[in-house]
Amino acid sequence: MAPKKVDRNGFQALLRVKPGAKVDLARFDCGATFGREKDAATDDLAKVLARLADLQERLWAEAAHAVLVVVQGIDAAGKDGTIRVIAGAFNPQGTPVASFKAPTPLELAHDYLWRVHQRVPAKGEIGIFNRSHYEDVLIVRVHGLVPEKRWRRRYEHIRSFEKMLTDEGVTIVKLFLAIDRDEQRARFQERVDDPTKRWKFNPGDLAERARWDDYRAAFEEMLDETSTAYAPWYLVPANRNWLRNLAVGEILADTLDALKPAYPPAAPGVEGTRVE
Amino acid sequence: MAPKKVDRNGFQALLRVKPGAKVDLARFDCGATFGREKDAATDDLAKVLARLADLQERLWAEAAHAVLVVVQGIDAAGKDGTIRVIAGAFNPQGTPVASFKAPTPLELAHDYLWRVHQRVPAKGEIGIFNRSHYEDVLIVRVHGLVPEKRWRRRYEHIRSFEKMLTDEGVTIVKLFLAIDRDEQRARFQERVDDPTKRWKFNPGDLAERARWDDYRAAFEEMLDETSTAYAPWYLVPANRNWLRNLAVGEILADTLDALKPAYPPAAPGVEGTRVE
Repeated sequence: MAPKKVDRNGFQALLRVKPGAKVDLARFDCGATFGREKDAATDDLAKVLARLADLQERLWAEAAHAVLVVVQGIDAAGKDGTIRVIAGAFNPQGTPVASFKAPTPLELAHDYLWRVHQRVPAKGEIGIFNRSHYEDVLIVRVHGLVPEKRWRRRYEHIRSFEKMLTDEGVTIVKLFLAIDRDEQRARFQERVDDPTKRWKFNPGDLAERARWDDYRAAFEEMLDETSTAYAPWYLVPANRNWLRNLAVGEILADTLDALKPAYPPAAPGVEGTRVE
Repeated sequence: MAPKKVDRNGFQALLRVKPGAKVDLARFDCGATFGREKDAATDDLAKVLARLADLQERLWAEAAHAVLVVVQGIDAAGKDGTIRVIAGAFNPQGTPVASFKAPTPLELAHDYLWRVHQRVPAKGEIGIFNRSHYEDVLIVRVHGLVPEKRWRRRYEHIRSFEKMLTDEGVTIVKLFLAIDRDEQRARFQERVDDPTKRWKFNPGDLAERARWDDYRAAFEEMLDETSTAYAPWYLVPANRNWLRNLAVGEILADTLDALKPAYPPAAPGVEGTRVE
């Protein structure tokens, strides 16, 4: 397979956050469509999911590369839905999903990368993080759970940690799902109003919503400080689920493509064996 | 939802191994169809996968029950394919798959249930084991890796371990996928002949195949000794993938149905909230 050129109009190029960028989320269009059509989205998504399925099977067979997909975003940004759609294309056996919630006492008794490191995928796997070590510069910062001096030096820790992982064969893709304040309102309201979704909502969500601007500042600095050449963030407009799914699917497929995963050769003597 | 009666013609009743059964795999029809039609299988499978998706979402929301699905079977019996189809119906986030291969030195330094216990699913999860602690009375027995005295007392350990799990809220479903010797030959030959499958095959597989009768005896005794009222084995005819998928899907759906998973009530004060 010939190496694929980066498509300048592809989402991988369009949405990648340049190292040291000064992201301004207040001016980011979370409803952007980049000229893509909703009518074509079902077909386009089916195509990219088929590509992903093929690539994942080769990656799993080859067992030479690990891929770590980090998914972040404010409450109701669509983290769960994105993971469901994308992981649905993969063999679940090679696709562990780790969901990082409020740390347990045991986790809190360790450094903040300890629990995360344990869940880093093995070679052949595509591991998905629903939230991650980035919460340690997000919720931790917004709620002042540790002093600024402590969370601020974490950007450097995280860059170093991700560099080590990359050097050791882990490909890292970081997805920031961006919805705007009004879209979050609508999604929360839907959770309240729909009896099958109400369990997802708790009144504490409104207290978090009230800190919208604090979160925005934390997200912006996280993107500026930790989008690197080796472990880039992608800033994904996520008001429209169909566009978000397409963008994430195409970014992942292009990332996997670049690894050129190939079925490994058979063990010596296998070819031509006649099974009795 | 009214509690569902056990359907006497359903796979759950048909394939369940009674405690203390004397299973005779040599006389078991691995190609049985139970009057089901292949032509209808695609529709039937879509229906049961939709049921599974709905049940899993409720189970996950409720977070009151854990479900452990153990998948065993000889090489090429279809363990991976079954897991792919069934887990494909579920939200991957709530469906950890644990694959137990040859134990590492660290695992061997512990009792044989140690590594397994760590991967038992949490409440709300449907955990799938691709192979399991049962290898410790299968491959370990066939290869004489421990003396008979040691592996023989493991039936009792396993019954006790599974009883404890059940008492603590884990529902256990054990699936034995049964193919016959000729079907294994055809599947191995296909792996050898298909360049995209050849990596799955290694010459050691033929050495294992040569021990077919030893494995059969080990499987039979495992089924007889460890199919219990609280953690039953299902003996699934698996020569035909379509029948195997239907049977496994329906057994799981009926098992989940019996737990009557329900969306939990909203937190106090959520209903009627207006999000600003």
